[in-house]
Amino acid sequence: MTGATAGDSAGASAPGDGTARRRGRPPRTESAGTRDRILDAAREEFSVRGYEKTSVRGIAKAAGVDSALVHHYFGTKEQVFEAAVEVAFAPALAGADAVLEGPPDEAGERMTRMIIGLWESPVTRVPLLAIVRSAVNNETAAGVFRRLIAGQVLRRIAGQLDLPDAELRAELAAAQLVGVLMIRYVIRMEPLASADAERIVERVAPVVQGHLTGR
Amino acid sequence: MTGATAGDSAGASAPGDGTARRRGRPPRTESAGTRDRILDAAREEFSVRGYEKTSVRGIAKAAGVDSALVHHYFGTKEQVFEAAVEVAFAPALAGADAVLEGPPDEAGERMTRMIIGLWESPVTRVPLLAIVRSAVNNETAAGVFRRLIAGQVLRRIAGQLDLPDAELRAELAAAQLVGVLMIRYVIRMEPLASADAERIVERVAPVVQGHLTGR
Repeated sequence: MTGATAGDSAGASAPGDGTARRRGRPPRTESAGTRDRILDAAREEFSVRGYEKTSVRGIAKAAGVDSALVHHYFGTKEQVFEAAVEVAFAPALAGADAVLEGPPDEAGERMTRMIIGLWESPVTRVPLLAIVRSAVNNETAAGVFRRLIAGQVLRRIAGQLDLPDAELRAELAAAQLVGVLMIRYVIRMEPLASADAERIVERVAPVVQGHLTGR
Repeated sequence: MTGATAGDSAGASAPGDGTARRRGRPPRTESAGTRDRILDAAREEFSVRGYEKTSVRGIAKAAGVDSALVHHYFGTKEQVFEAAVEVAFAPALAGADAVLEGPPDEAGERMTRMIIGLWESPVTRVPLLAIVRSAVNNETAAGVFRRLIAGQVLRRIAGQLDLPDAELRAELAAAQLVGVLMIRYVIRMEPLASADAERIVERVAPVVQGHLTGR
């Protein structure tokens, strides 16, 4: 796919903006570095502005490249977002695998620790917060979120449960955690916002376990 | 307070926009109807546009009044938002009282049914969804949300528990419900989005009860 045919009108560069002269495939040796630079810029833009206010042109500008090059590597704005979200979710996907290893009756605690751990660290929390904000506000961003969370993280966990309603169980477990994240990190309601993380794990892990494997 | 001194620069009408000639106190007989009309317009504007994109001027226009009159009745944009949110939360506040009546060991089920009931009906869901979206995206709106939910609904419930950590318990119970709302009504992830409401109550009510009164 080339920038000239990629079809995201909302984010594509306007005609005659003077950047088109740099269109076309980049020299092969530059590719990996350029792609990563665009992806870093995209994560930063989506984090700061959210999905709706971010444009492919803004990402290109932040990365110091032409908009066409962003389209060339990633396609539409939605596809750039999906690539950025995948990077942010890589630790959660790795964590999902860790949840599935070890004793099944401790899966609830492992899942709780994994999620709380990701949100306690600002390095992982900031991009996740941006994704959640975008998903709450924009249907396209919500679709990306659904595909990655329901389609990958939760389906992996449900697949290991070997119980009727495994997917509903995984989602109800996720719901308890999502609610804690919303109240603690997004809305920051007290006393949950300042409660010791270990105390939250202690109260929440048995609930998550109950959803996953309880009666 | 008059429009000339009300202090919401983001939403106040610009000088010289031709509406100032209608400033001043309205005739007393009109007051109740005008106030309600402004409040209806505010709820509609905040629902459709969210907190950030709504302006006092837009609310005034939708209500067919001068911006100064909006400031006169409600104050700043934040105060108009708070008044609109209070109206949307009136059923939840009434529901909080109902949660506290009846057998304590069924409070979890009553709280779950009350919240799911509010979100199953589009009439109450649409304004609540708008408030949640605004609170996730805007710190001022989040503050209004914290004051009303933590300060009123949850504190009332916690006050009846007569247990250590009552407020944390009420918030963790709310967290389970908030997560269900996010996954079912906001992100609309399957299978939870299409699951029978009664089946959700069956699985979630014992968890809510456990947070409220469990060990």
